[in-house]
Parts: sequence; C-alpha cells; structure tokens
Amino acid sequence: MLTALGEASQLADAVITTGGLGPTHDDVTATAFYRYFQDEPIFDKVYWQELESRFGRMGRNIPAINKDQALRPRSGETIPNAVGTARGLHYERESCHYFCLPGVPREMKAMMTQTVLPWIQSHSRQTFFVKTLRTTGIPESALAEKLAQDLHVAGDQVEVAFLPQMIGVDLRLTGPTQAHVEAVEHRIWPTIERYVYGTGEDRLETVLGRQLQSLGLTLAVAESCTGGLLSHRITNSPGSSAYFLGGMVTYSNQLKEELLGVRHETLEVHGAVSEPTAREMAEGIRARTGADLGIGITGIAGPGGGTPEKPVGLVYIGLAVTAGTIAKRFEFSFDRETNKLVSTQAALNMIRKWLHDRG
Amino acid sequence: MLTALGEASQLADAVITTGGLGPTHDDVTATAFYRYFQDEPIFDKVYWQELESRFGRMGRNIPAINKDQALRPRSGETIPNAVGTARGLHYERESCHYFCLPGVPREMKAMMTQTVLPWIQSHSRQTFFVKTLRTTGIPESALAEKLAQDLHVAGDQVEVAFLPQMIGVDLRLTGPTQAHVEAVEHRIWPTIERYVYGTGEDRLETVLGRQLQSLGLTLAVAESCTGGLLSHRITNSPGSSAYFLGGMVTYSNQLKEELLGVRHETLEVHGAVSEPTAREMAEGIRARTGADLGIGITGIAGPGGGTPEKPVGLVYIGLAVTAGTIAKRFEFSFDRETNKLVSTQAALNMIRKWLHDRG
Repeated sequence: MLTALGEASQLADAVITTGGLGPTHDDVTATAFYRYFQDEPIFDKVYWQELESRFGRMGRNIPAINKDQALRPRSGETIPNAVGTARGLHYERESCHYFCLPGVPREMKAMMTQTVLPWIQSHSRQTFFVKTLRTTGIPESALAEKLAQDLHVAGDQVEVAFLPQMIGVDLRLTGPTQAHVEAVEHRIWPTIERYVYGTGEDRLETVLGRQLQSLGLTLAVAESCTGGLLSHRITNSPGSSAYFLGGMVTYSNQLKEELLGVRHETLEVHGAVSEPTAREMAEGIRARTGADLGIGITGIAGPGGGTPEKPVGLVYIGLAVTAGTIAKRFEFSFDRETNKLVSTQAALNMIRKWLHDRG
Repeated sequence: MLTALGEASQLADAVITTGGLGPTHDDVTATAFYRYFQDEPIFDKVYWQELESRFGRMGRNIPAINKDQALRPRSGETIPNAVGTARGLHYERESCHYFCLPGVPREMKAMMTQTVLPWIQSHSRQTFFVKTLRTTGIPESALAEKLAQDLHVAGDQVEVAFLPQMIGVDLRLTGPTQAHVEAVEHRIWPTIERYVYGTGEDRLETVLGRQLQSLGLTLAVAESCTGGLLSHRITNSPGSSAYFLGGMVTYSNQLKEELLGVRHETLEVHGAVSEPTAREMAEGIRARTGADLGIGITGIAGPGGGTPEKPVGLVYIGLAVTAGTIAKRFEFSFDRETNKLVSTQAALNMIRKWLHDRG
C-alpha cells in the first residue's frame, strides 16, 4: 500500500483510496496512511463521546474495538462520515492531496459527494459543464443510429457519451460551457424527445410520481412475475404515499381470482400469462383500491416455467384507466432479476406515454 | 490507454481492462487494443450472422452500427459474451496476458466468471481455499469482539476478513487448504452459529425458501413501509412460487382496513405504525391467503413522517403462525431505501429464528 501511494503521487494531484478504516484487525489502511505520512495518531475524545452517545441512542453499548475509529491524525485532517462511524483521512504532501475513504459503498459515496468532490471542484483549474439526459424504451445502438447525423457536426466541442443501463440509455453531454452543451441538446431534442424522461439522477418512478401528484391521480399495481418490484420502485420515492395507494403481489392463480377478481375462465382459457389476465389484473386492482390508474403485470421471469408458446421473458402489462384498458406484450431475454427489472420499467414507461399522450 | 497497458504489463502476469467495446463512437477501447498489439482486426461473418439472427428473434433489425462488434483479432482471441453482443479480447505478449472486457456490469461479470477467472485459476501457481460465512443480526464490531479470542491463535495460517454489508456481515476465511480453513470454522462455530444463515453467495431469502419448501410451509406478506421490497426479495429466488403465495402492499390506512382487515379502532388508537397494527397485518394476510406464515411490516421509512414518539426508522414486524403471533420493534437510522432493506432483512431473520427454534 505504501508503494502504491508513492506511485500514485507521481501521476496525479489528488489520490483517492477506498476500502478499510473499519474497526476489525484486518483493516490496515489507516495504519498504512499513518506510516506513509510518518504521523502519530492521537485519540479523539470528543469524537469517541459522540460515538458512545450515537450507539447509546440505538440502545447499544459501543464495543471497545471501535476505539481505533476515534483516532485522528496529527498532521492531517479527518473527513466526516455522515452515515457511519469511520472517518476518512486527508493528507497533503508536496502539493499532492491524499483522500482515504472507507470501503462500505454508502459511506464512501457520502464522503465523495459531501467532501471530496466539492474539494476537487473548488481546486480544479479546468471547468466544464455536464448534462445527462435519461432515455428509456430504445436500445443503445438504435439511439446512436438515430443520432449519428446530429452528432457529427464539426466544432461542437461537446462530447456525447452513451451510457447504457438495463432500464435505459443515458446520454451524457460534456462541453466547455452550458451554452455549448445546450446547443447540442436543442439540436438533438426532436430526435430524442419521445424517449427522454428526465435529466441527471432523475428516476422514472419519481418523475412519474411528481406528474401524478400534480394531476391529482392515484395509482395501484397488481404484480405477478415482477413479484413486488414495481411497488418497491414506486415507494422508493419519498412522499409516494400521496399518489400510490398500494398493490398486490398475486403469485398464485388462486390469489389472482380471490384478491383481484380475475375470472376463473380467463385463467383456464388464456392462462395466467396472457393479455386478458393482464387486463383483468389491472382492472381488478383499480376497482379494489379505487385508484385512478391500475397496472397489471403477468409473465414468466424465468429461468424455468417457459414453453415454446410462452417462452421465458414473455410479459403482458395492462394499464386500466377510466376510459378503458390498454395492454401490451413484451418479450425480454435476460436472467430472472433483469426480466423483473425491465418489466417494471416497461410498466412505468406505459404510464409515462399515457400521461404524455394525454397532454 | 496505450501507456497504461504498457505500465500494467510491468507489474503483473495478467492485465484485465473493463469498459468500452460498445457499438457507439465514444468507445475506443477495442481500437486501442488493436493498436497496442499492432493487430489488424478482421470482420467475423459467422458472428455477424449470429448477431443478426439474435436481433431477429427479438423482432428487431440489427443496426449497421453494430458491425464493429463483429470484428475479431487476427493475433488474439475473442472472449464469448453470454449475455450481450460485445465480445471481449484476449491477447498475450511476452508471457503477459491481457483481457479486455466490456463495461456493462452484467456482461463484464459473466465474462469474468465464465472465462477469465477459470483461466487465471488454471494458470496460477498459488493455491488457497476460501470459505465465506454469511451472518445477519449482529453488527460488525460486536461480532469482531465476540470472536477476538478465537481468532488470535498462533499458527492458524487462516486470514479472517470482516465484510460488512447493510444486511449482515460476511466472514471470509482464507487459508492454504480446506482443512486449515475448516479447523478455524469449527473453532468459531459455537460463537457464530446463532447468526450464520449460509455460506458463499447464499441469500437469506433463498435459504429460507428451501427450508419452507422442505417443510411444506407457505408464506404471504403484508407490507407498508417496505413497499413491496420483501415480496421482491422473496420472488428473486427461482421456484419461490412453491412456498410464496403472494402479498399486499397496503400503503394507505384505508387499504390496511379493507384488504387486510386491520381494525379501524386499532389504527385510531395505536396508529398505523404500532405493534398491534403489525400483528393484525400479519394475521390479516395469513387469513386472506391461507398461508402458514404471515408477515406484517409497518414503519416510517423516512426521510419525512417522523415524530418525537415515532421517529423515522421505527419499524414493527409481526409474524403470524398457527400457534399465534409474535411481533418485534426495531429502530433503524438510515436513509429511506436502506431502512426498507434492513427492515426486510429483519423480517426474514424473524422467520429464520422461528424455523430455527422450531427445530
């Protein structure tokens, strides 16, 4: 680790490490930092008392093993940890800055966004403007093909990166100024407008939630193959109780009939994975909850359960509203969890399009 | 990128890159590899036809932009991509091996586990044995303190790493042979047995599912603050329909009454976030679905909605079985999504303990 720190300092103005700083004996990162900077840490009584009272509030005694986490450098700084106990370290040597962050992802991310990135930004001589447009419902290569003409314009100085994820493709525009970036955004807008649901870190479910709330519409969902993931995604947005009434996960046919009122005949004739079942699930949850919009999802997430007529990845989604019910057929080709994820995205995208067309 | 490849080859026998290989213009990785190895890629007709028919099966035309993905090296090998279109590259120079993998996480992971790791293992001169024990329900520092005596034994040659996650702490034991590792495992077993739910990549929900299935027991869940996440986690396990009947997400009080039969009086007197409500939700979902086990979860996920008496992170979980209903109070202190996650883990852990005590 000492060698790596030495080498990294040759390459960059800022060196960030992640991993370690925990209370257990296998975490040697802090010790390595103290050695590298020939520092002698001191015991930080104030922080220790804070840790003690934090544990106390959770009704627990603080284990003595946590004592190491109250050490602080003499010649360096600590980086506050808003979501955990291990503070980070910040040293400077020969105008190179070293940031030592814990390995636990949420603690590391919190320190990055709250301390390290703002520090880097305020010390950076380069400035640039970044805007991310989030699209869904179109594959990366099709989007790139549609945009090929628009993007090969000389003198733009704007870099467009395609960042594909399972639930959509992000377009990241990076240019010297906001004006540069927005000029390109306006040029490509007519091509991408149908697919864009937000910018930056927007989530489709959150964007939709805001729209539903402002329109005074409520939503309820009935899930089979997605097994609760759609409800989970919707309720990840704080304040979702304003428009989300709830949902049912009807994994068995019996519950589809008893709880949602799907007709026995429909299940007999068309099967659980069918357009009529998706429609009746959507209508059933809408009727039982009194929601304005009802979603029904049924399909085969896999890996088992497929047949030649109804293969793994086949999904039907129904959307029931006052004016009637629409339903769509999808065929995905991923693993179980990804099929669940893209199915929920397709359902949210059906709501997005319906709201869009509704104007 | 060329400089980095050159430098990396000085440090290691195998160099793995990840990122790029996509069909869009901003992916320059493959080009850099061809240049570094002074290779002239050739168009792979057979693979192109395979891509064409793969797209065809999904009912889509393959965009011409994908053509680059059918290139293959002359002097190197391709690495198959089981879950996407971009194949990886494998070159050798001066007994250093270079693996070029795509950036999309699931494609990268598939190539790592299916091709690269097996290759490294078969070419490695060092052998060691690794076993991971997965625990839940005890914080890292408390676990470390309990194990302190057991782990400081001279001559073990087994390294024990504490890998904390939000849903539990993994103990990774690494030693020269299986016998070494298992000797340490047996020594620490009495201390950790209460907390261990599995090994390796086991998930708590999957382990529980196998137990429920072998006991012929069925499960249904009623969720409020976890918003469907518990159902989602349970249904991530293939074959979960054998023991999981379904669930309800009753976000509004009205649905708690109408769908689950929670008494109006209970909600009036104790509130939605209370032990009596958690009990009645558990009993309600059990009665309505006919499941052997019913889970009810109610709480305040945050960030809003807390009061001095009922702070954010307060969660009640009920478990209803034939013999009666048990309920527990929890207080978590994380962000909304983490509170949801740890609440579902607590619910699964209640089932685990119940099955454990049941013998």
